[in-house]
Amino acid sequence: MIQTPYLLFLGDAPDQLAAKVAQGIADWRPESAVGQFRMAGCKADAGLSDMSLAEAREAGARTLVIGVANRGGTISEAWKKVLIEALGMGFDLASGLHSLLRKENDLVRAATDHGRTLHDVRVPAVSYPIANGVRRSGKRVLAVGTDCSIGKMYTALALEQGMRRRGMKCTFRASGQTGILIAGRGVPLDAVVADFMAGAVEWLTPENDSDHWDIIEGQGSLFHVSYSGVTLALLHGGQPDALILSHEPTRTHMRGLPDYMLPSLETLRDIALPLARVANPVCEVVGIAVNTRAMDDDMAKDYLAGVERRMGLPAIDPYRHGADRLVDALASL
Amino acid sequence: MIQTPYLLFLGDAPDQLAAKVAQGIADWRPESAVGQFRMAGCKADAGLSDMSLAEAREAGARTLVIGVANRGGTISEAWKKVLIEALGMGFDLASGLHSLLRKENDLVRAATDHGRTLHDVRVPAVSYPIANGVRRSGKRVLAVGTDCSIGKMYTALALEQGMRRRGMKCTFRASGQTGILIAGRGVPLDAVVADFMAGAVEWLTPENDSDHWDIIEGQGSLFHVSYSGVTLALLHGGQPDALILSHEPTRTHMRGLPDYMLPSLETLRDIALPLARVANPVCEVVGIAVNTRAMDDDMAKDYLAGVERRMGLPAIDPYRHGADRLVDALASL
Repeated sequence: MIQTPYLLFLGDAPDQLAAKVAQGIADWRPESAVGQFRMAGCKADAGLSDMSLAEAREAGARTLVIGVANRGGTISEAWKKVLIEALGMGFDLASGLHSLLRKENDLVRAATDHGRTLHDVRVPAVSYPIANGVRRSGKRVLAVGTDCSIGKMYTALALEQGMRRRGMKCTFRASGQTGILIAGRGVPLDAVVADFMAGAVEWLTPENDSDHWDIIEGQGSLFHVSYSGVTLALLHGGQPDALILSHEPTRTHMRGLPDYMLPSLETLRDIALPLARVANPVCEVVGIAVNTRAMDDDMAKDYLAGVERRMGLPAIDPYRHGADRLVDALASL
Repeated sequence: MIQTPYLLFLGDAPDQLAAKVAQGIADWRPESAVGQFRMAGCKADAGLSDMSLAEAREAGARTLVIGVANRGGTISEAWKKVLIEALGMGFDLASGLHSLLRKENDLVRAATDHGRTLHDVRVPAVSYPIANGVRRSGKRVLAVGTDCSIGKMYTALALEQGMRRRGMKCTFRASGQTGILIAGRGVPLDAVVADFMAGAVEWLTPENDSDHWDIIEGQGSLFHVSYSGVTLALLHGGQPDALILSHEPTRTHMRGLPDYMLPSLETLRDIALPLARVANPVCEVVGIAVNTRAMDDDMAKDYLAGVERRMGLPAIDPYRHGADRLVDALASL
């Protein structure tokens, strides 16, 4: 568990995209961040108040979160001075970068000297069990995609927001680095050893009240040959009661795989649902989340109406229009 | 690569089942083992000549393979004297046990002193890449099961034997501990980090002659919630041209999961084949391998004839009847 509130470190981000972790936190957990810290030359802005380390500590910040990615995912020497100063002032550090905080001797030394914690959310902190498949109380929903990086995490966070507004009991369950930094906890599933993947998902989504929803962050795609095993572990470890199908209609091939086309929503449904029912026989596909970013308003509206007719299910862009119609569908289960 | 030939260490095995790794090597690679080493009280017999360490060295043995499993998979103190003596006499050691040779200080010291190698085949020795999905030349076959531990490895080894007898080019590609000790190389897939599973399978089954068959050892089952992700990584990383369906008809529930029934062969086919075709659009199901151990001859014959009619595919028990009819089906692809 990472201590909140955060100060978001944007460093010397060369553009807005480099700070997408900070943006995710600012978008979905504004109450978790007192402000942002930008170095000279920073080209990103998460829309929060700029603060010095001292101002942020004054405002209650407990963890400095690295919300920026370098090319190559390394911890830049230019950042080190700030990070070491922050440890000295009582901040913990949290990072989802490929290069680990705990491998940087100067950071380890400063953390030890000042009794602070270094959170590397890219590596598992727990010995997960092998999945036992025992049915758990509580309800669970999972988004499965026609491809990777198609909006499954944003869909999950939009569902959480919609459910909270209605006073429904729910928890966003993070399965990736950005999600973990947003939620402050979770499982970095792509870094878990194969035998323990499904068990890690069971651990992540334990027994709960019968009217509580776990909103599980999806990963990969059953149709993406590089990562499909991770997706199936989520389906079988998560025992979802409900699936959301996620899609991006303008993508011309699977991410990183130029020779692979995306499956249709029908094909995704026909493969994902029988597999989900192995672990939870009452699982249903309840709706479709489309990432319409590349479409104008009319085009998005037409496309969604067409999908809705074809599939007989609510089809929305949760980022553009909110997730209310998906929340309706889940509330009626 | 583990150096052959082996001396098989059966230790103080309490029964025949405890020595199943040694039995697998003796059954499928008799040319790789000069003999077996048994301690006082050993209740197992792999059917090879009993030899002392000195006799085995004389006969050319280069590696002492731990072919026995303790309860808990530990390295027994009672074995240590033999293992250390073997290192001193020039043997390498190889083990698939959960407890690692490299974690035993006395073994590490003896190996270092004598310049020998400790092979722990349970842990990956390679940094595998992320799968790129690029189509590779050569042909590949994979057995997929209605459950785990249903005879997929024996099916693969029987296929290899049948192909070799006909002079077909082929390689058994091990994906588990016992398979790796049998083949002397392979990938311990269940110990690979999630993101790299499919890439490890691509690495295991590289480009090859167009008339060469990789016979990939299967793992888990798409329907076994604890391990299904590993199975899907094999389907997508292995790009099989041919699938064999594996089944054990008397099993009353999935292994280790009392509340889960086995799927039918039809259900397995209808899920596995579309998933396999994501990576290899020409993949076909070519036959069915049934483990009929629990049936008498007549019962097995009737059952296989019934499956063959129902599924319209050759159905055999490769261990009982040889894999010839499956080899026929593969040779015609």
